[in-house]
Amino acid sequence: MKYELYYWPEIQGRGEYVRLALEEAGTAYVDVARGPRGSSAMMKMMDAHGGTPPFAPPFLKAGKLVIGQTANILLYLGSRHGLAPKTEAGRLWVHQLQLTIADFVLEIHDTHHPLGPSLYYEDARPAAKKRTEEFWKERVPKYLGYFEELLDGNGGVYVTGRRLTYVDLSLFQIVDGLRYAFPKRMKAFEKEVPGLVNLHDRVAARPNIAAYLESDRRIPFNEQGIFRRYKELDV
Amino acid sequence: MKYELYYWPEIQGRGEYVRLALEEAGTAYVDVARGPRGSSAMMKMMDAHGGTPPFAPPFLKAGKLVIGQTANILLYLGSRHGLAPKTEAGRLWVHQLQLTIADFVLEIHDTHHPLGPSLYYEDARPAAKKRTEEFWKERVPKYLGYFEELLDGNGGVYVTGRRLTYVDLSLFQIVDGLRYAFPKRMKAFEKEVPGLVNLHDRVAARPNIAAYLESDRRIPFNEQGIFRRYKELDV
Repeated sequence: MKYELYYWPEIQGRGEYVRLALEEAGTAYVDVARGPRGSSAMMKMMDAHGGTPPFAPPFLKAGKLVIGQTANILLYLGSRHGLAPKTEAGRLWVHQLQLTIADFVLEIHDTHHPLGPSLYYEDARPAAKKRTEEFWKERVPKYLGYFEELLDGNGGVYVTGRRLTYVDLSLFQIVDGLRYAFPKRMKAFEKEVPGLVNLHDRVAARPNIAAYLESDRRIPFNEQGIFRRYKELDV
Repeated sequence: MKYELYYWPEIQGRGEYVRLALEEAGTAYVDVARGPRGSSAMMKMMDAHGGTPPFAPPFLKAGKLVIGQTANILLYLGSRHGLAPKTEAGRLWVHQLQLTIADFVLEIHDTHHPLGPSLYYEDARPAAKKRTEEFWKERVPKYLGYFEELLDGNGGVYVTGRRLTYVDLSLFQIVDGLRYAFPKRMKAFEKEVPGLVNLHDRVAARPNIAAYLESDRRIPFNEQGIFRRYKELDV
C-alpha cells in the first residue's frame, strides 16, 4: 500500500511532522497536493458530505482510511513503522508528548498571528512583537526545558528511551524551525538545551533524513508556514 | 480500579472534558486536587525526574499508568467505557475530532490571552477585543459549522453516528461555555447551528450528566478558566 499525504504544497507546516516520519520509515508515499491537480483533489476530500471529512490538512490516506490531525496520523504510523513503542503505555506516552509539541506549534504560529489566523501579519505587527517577547521569555524555556529534562532524565539518547520515535523527529523540526525563524534568539538560547541540539544533529544525520533534507521533497522554510523569519521579531 | 484525576481545583478548564467522560461512564474517580493536600500531590507528580512526568494538568492515574493531555486521556477512556467505537477506524475518527476540538479550545483561550498565556487579561485588553472579533467572524463559524455539518450529514443523532461518544460530551461543553462567556454573541449565532444546540440539550438531559451538573462536583464557570465572561468582549 502506498500512502497518500495531503497537505498544502507550498509549506512545511504541520505536514512536515508527517513527512519526516514517512521519510525515516522509508515507506512509499505520494505528496498528493504537490502533483498535478493535487490541490483540487485535496479540497474535494475535505468536502465529503455524510462521510468523515477532515477539518484541515494534513491528512493521510491509508487504503480506505482517511486520517486527519497531525498527531493522530503519527499515532497511526508510529506503531506500524517502528517509530513508537508497541505497548499501550508506551504508545500513549509518545502520543502525549506529540500533543504537547502540537500545543507548542500553535504557540509558535501565534507569535506572528496573535490576533487570529485569518489576518495578515502586517496587520498584527505590534501585537506580534509583544507575543514574541512573552514567547521567548516564558514559553520556549518551559517547553524546550521540559523536553531537555526528559532527555537528561533517561540518559540523553532519545526522548522516550533508547529507540527513536516520531517525537524525536518532531523535536528535530522544532529546533530547525526556531533556528530559521529566530536565528539570533535561538543562538543565544541553545546553550540552555544542549541535549536537544545534539538530538537535532543526530536526527539530521540519519541516512533517510539526511537524504530527505537534501532532496527537493523538503520544501524550504518560508514566510507562509509556521516558522517565519521576520527581522523585527528576532532581536 | 478507581481513577485519579489531577487538575486545577478552581476551574473547569481542560479537565472538564475528562470529568464529563468519567461522569457519563459512571465510573469511580477521585478529583485529587480538590481534596486536602491535593494540589501539592499534583505538583509532585509533575516533577518525576527520570520518569514520565506530564507537561501540564490534566492527567489521569489509572493503576500504574499516568496519562496526560486531555485528548489522550479520552482516547484511553473512550474504548474502555463505551464512549468511542471499538474499531481502529472508528477510534481514530473520534480522536481526530477531539483533536480538532482541542485546537478550538486553544483559540477560545486566545480570545482573552492573545499576547500569551502568562500575561494578565487586563494587560492585553485591546488585543483581546481584536482577536475576539476575528474569532466570532471567522473561527466560530468555521469550527461549529464543521461539526454542524457532520451532525447533519449523518442524520443528526450524534456527531459520529448513532452512539454517543466523548466528542458529543465535549461539544456540549463548547456550547455551554460559549453561552457563558459570550451570551449575546452566542444567542445571535445559535440559529446557525440548530443541530449542535439540540445535541447540547440532549447531552445535558442524560441522567448521569444531569446529576453531575446539579452536583458540587461541577465547578461553576468563572474568570480563571477557558470560558471567561468579559462584558467588553461580548458586544
